[in-house]
Amino acid sequence: MNHARSRIWELVEVSYDSDSHSPVLDWYDTGMMALILLNVLAVVIASVEEIGGRFAWFFSAFEVFSVAIFTVEYIVKLWACTADARYAHPVLGRVKYALTPMVIIDLLAFLPFYLWFFMIDLRFLRALRLFRLLRVLKLGRYSQSLALMAHVFRRKRSDLMAVALVLLVMLVIAASIMYYAEHEAQPEAFSSIPAAMWWGVATFTTIGYGDVYPITPLGRVLGSFIAILGIGIFALPAGILASGFSEEHERMRNECNRNVCPQCGQAIDE
Amino acid sequence: MNHARSRIWELVEVSYDSDSHSPVLDWYDTGMMALILLNVLAVVIASVEEIGGRFAWFFSAFEVFSVAIFTVEYIVKLWACTADARYAHPVLGRVKYALTPMVIIDLLAFLPFYLWFFMIDLRFLRALRLFRLLRVLKLGRYSQSLALMAHVFRRKRSDLMAVALVLLVMLVIAASIMYYAEHEAQPEAFSSIPAAMWWGVATFTTIGYGDVYPITPLGRVLGSFIAILGIGIFALPAGILASGFSEEHERMRNECNRNVCPQCGQAIDE
Amino acid sequence: MNHARSRIWELVEVSYDSDSHSPVLDWYDTGMMALILLNVLAVVIASVEEIGGRFAWFFSAFEVFSVAIFTVEYIVKLWACTADARYAHPVLGRVKYALTPMVIIDLLAFLPFYLWFFMIDLRFLRALRLFRLLRVLKLGRYSQSLALMAHVFRRKRSDLMAVALVLLVMLVIAASIMYYAEHEAQPEAFSSIPAAMWWGVATFTTIGYGDVYPITPLGRVLGSFIAILGIGIFALPAGILASGFSEEHERMRNECNRNVCPQCGQAIDE
Amino acid sequence: MNHARSRIWELVEVSYDSDSHSPVLDWYDTGMMALILLNVLAVVIASVEEIGGRFAWFFSAFEVFSVAIFTVEYIVKLWACTADARYAHPVLGRVKYALTPMVIIDLLAFLPFYLWFFMIDLRFLRALRLFRLLRVLKLGRYSQSLALMAHVFRRKRSDLMAVALVLLVMLVIAASIMYYAEHEAQPEAFSSIPAAMWWGVATFTTIGYGDVYPITPLGRVLGSFIAILGIGIFALPAGILASGFSEEHERMRNECNRNVCPQCGQAIDE
Repeated sequence: MNHARSRIWELVEVSYDSDSHSPVLDWYDTGMMALILLNVLAVVIASVEEIGGRFAWFFSAFEVFSVAIFTVEYIVKLWACTADARYAHPVLGRVKYALTPMVIIDLLAFLPFYLWFFMIDLRFLRALRLFRLLRVLKLGRYSQSLALMAHVFRRKRSDLMAVALVLLVMLVIAASIMYYAEHEAQPEAFSSIPAAMWWGVATFTTIGYGDVYPITPLGRVLGSFIAILGIGIFALPAGILASGFSEEHERMRNECNRNVCPQCGQAIDE
Repeated sequence: MNHARSRIWELVEVSYDSDSHSPVLDWYDTGMMALILLNVLAVVIASVEEIGGRFAWFFSAFEVFSVAIFTVEYIVKLWACTADARYAHPVLGRVKYALTPMVIIDLLAFLPFYLWFFMIDLRFLRALRLFRLLRVLKLGRYSQSLALMAHVFRRKRSDLMAVALVLLVMLVIAASIMYYAEHEAQPEAFSSIPAAMWWGVATFTTIGYGDVYPITPLGRVLGSFIAILGIGIFALPAGILASGFSEEHERMRNECNRNVCPQCGQAIDE
Repeated sequence: MNHARSRIWELVEVSYDSDSHSPVLDWYDTGMMALILLNVLAVVIASVEEIGGRFAWFFSAFEVFSVAIFTVEYIVKLWACTADARYAHPVLGRVKYALTPMVIIDLLAFLPFYLWFFMIDLRFLRALRLFRLLRVLKLGRYSQSLALMAHVFRRKRSDLMAVALVLLVMLVIAASIMYYAEHEAQPEAFSSIPAAMWWGVATFTTIGYGDVYPITPLGRVLGSFIAILGIGIFALPAGILASGFSEEHERMRNECNRNVCPQCGQAIDE
Repeated sequence: MNHARSRIWELVEVSYDSDSHSPVLDWYDTGMMALILLNVLAVVIASVEEIGGRFAWFFSAFEVFSVAIFTVEYIVKLWACTADARYAHPVLGRVKYALTPMVIIDLLAFLPFYLWFFMIDLRFLRALRLFRLLRVLKLGRYSQSLALMAHVFRRKRSDLMAVALVLLVMLVIAASIMYYAEHEAQPEAFSSIPAAMWWGVATFTTIGYGDVYPITPLGRVLGSFIAILGIGIFALPAGILASGFSEEHERMRNECNRNVCPQCGQAIDE
């Protein structure tokens, strides 16, 4: 029983690091991945009215089929998770496992379907199914590149958060300035500071939809200064990440051919 | 008396470098920070007409409360600042302290409230209260990242200023060219060279609101060249900052483990 | 015969690496390049109605002339390709050669002209002639820089593909979120998730045409978060490529003057 | 006479490298720089109709004054240039000097004023006066940063030109594709391939004015691919320049503390 549980646990919880990929495991992975992708595709296509309306029966059937599989997978996972040392306790371990972010997403992906029977319409939560897509990223041939990227992001996390903080503070200041400058001329577009922040986001990210922009000379001069300052802020993440990739590359190279002191020939720990 | 003054000075002038953070100091810092954040939030929210109108009495009360605190803080700061060696002189030191940029901002944050009694409406200066937000940046968990960023900006200051100068010169040239090319076809949008500079800012920053753009074939050809050149200029700050972050990282690493072979103790040139 | 074939093969298949550029080969290269450029220019100019209509006879004549040359070149290439060791077999070699991407493009560049006689209108394939332009890139004075760029792209291919994958997943998620947030307010612009992806592309790339943008407060808040996250994603390729160029430069320098002390001849670890 | 000519030559041709800045030379430099800046300011301000119309007499007077100074400076320069070894020949040297780009710009800056007497209206050439602004860049406190930037641009010139070439080829291809996809649906906006190139420029540079964009599903799909590819191209100059700045910084550091072989202690030329 315990052995079977371990085997099944290994099967349902995709073991990325394991080198002993059995053919069964590969088939299971590929199948689940395909189901998730088809599900996402179904959500996307069904949103097109002409298609979603005409083939409603097909999408409903596929929905039932998917929810059935996801439900079974969820139950099996909860049953098997005690095979993992981290969730070994029969009750507490299962609760702990059920509360991990990925498993909550798994639950939210099919729960709305059942709640609908009780007249609780939370179907918009189906969109959460899309987050299962993130799992796809962990697999496949680009996993190494993605791991490198994730590593760089994690190492530069506090720098990037600091940029986001500066951005937020500057956004509030810029929106307030523009609100005072443009409110009288455009009481609609710059109706309040939060509304002016929408202009600020479009400007700082250099998207510039063109639905909100200053029209008074003062607003344009101030807006120009803010926009040009925005270039500098926009350049920060690029600079931080570029530096992060360089450092990572350097670190990897140093690991390959460890530094050896040219005087005594012994390795030097960096 | 002098000892009390020193203690109070330490309290009101947030001492970022001091390691001896007493609980009182921490509480005071957190409280002032919360008040500033709530004030900014109040300014932002009160600008939304439906909310600002209905809860006018609340925002007025909070305004009076905030101004009272800020006024007391300002007076205490001015009284205590002589504890600092830089502002030791009873009169000149206080004047000198009162004229530092941060203290001027503190004054402008609450002064308009009093001037209003004298029928001088400078309430738009309240927006300056937002700049107190910048103080928030100095605190908290991202202070190290922010210090790194500030350091990189300071080291690359002259390079970035030079880019800004090139940008300004190119902006004037580009706006003049477009003015001559588009003035006849669009006497409204390209009414003058300063007006054409608004197009130039939107183009160089790649925001492109879409309120002003060339429509004549000549204007479009010239505008295309200017826009593509703009890519190069836009890439400059990113390049400068990326290089700055790399250098800083390198410098820090070199400082941490100076290049000395741990076996033989001899320095190694990199 | 075989010698002639080798000479002609050398002539028609531009031999970039060969150092023995004969004057004939140079003339042939320049001529074909000029013909391709003129062809592209003709396609571009003929699309302007006033010009394309008035000088229709000229563009038709130039079309016939170009197709004749391209046809002859294609036949000669197919005949001569057996001179190359890779395509030595009289039949299979020629088929193999005919199926290389560049040769298929060559075929598609003139085939529509003949199919037109059989009432099959595939003239839109003429646009493929433009891809011959890519050949121009291989020649000329910038070939070294382009080779460096191609090299960096190739080395960072998997990283860039991984970014594209992340971008795609985020695009689907962002479009779904915005569809649920904006569909009711703007049933036209956000008519379906694929339609919302058009908004997503304009936002992630920071183009922001301004034809589609959120108008509900919820949509704007969510759109702002997505847009700011987009900055980070946008910064990734720049960071990856910057790091790639640095590495390539380093590698080239190390290859040029290998780290050997010119005085004592011993290698130095960097 | 020759000595005076040398002194005057030194005066009029700003000698950036010379360390022996006499006070006279400094005054002359500052004066000319101020005149150029005021001239640019006059051109910019006079373009504003309300100001340019009311103070027409002032701008005319300043125009006459400026042209007089520029004319005298031009004549003096031509007279004195033979003091320079490069332009030593009394006639040929002067012609050679007169044909250097900066001197041609100087001529075009005031020549239109005189031609106007002969009913030749080339006043739009006055805009060329703006290019004299570029001279301002060479002076002042940012000259070192600007020299570094110019150096990086010059070293990476062929790389950047290659990017521009790739951009141009891709622009033609993208515009042709979009022309075939959108011409029927929007015969106005995508009237011809050159017109579609205007869409291409706005898209590749991520400006996105919003005056031209695809509306057909096919056009949007193709446009999305082109836009996302554009991110990669846009990231190239940033990557190239970042790498250039890093290399330059490295080179400067290596010059400071020359590499010394750790075995024999002798310097190593890199």
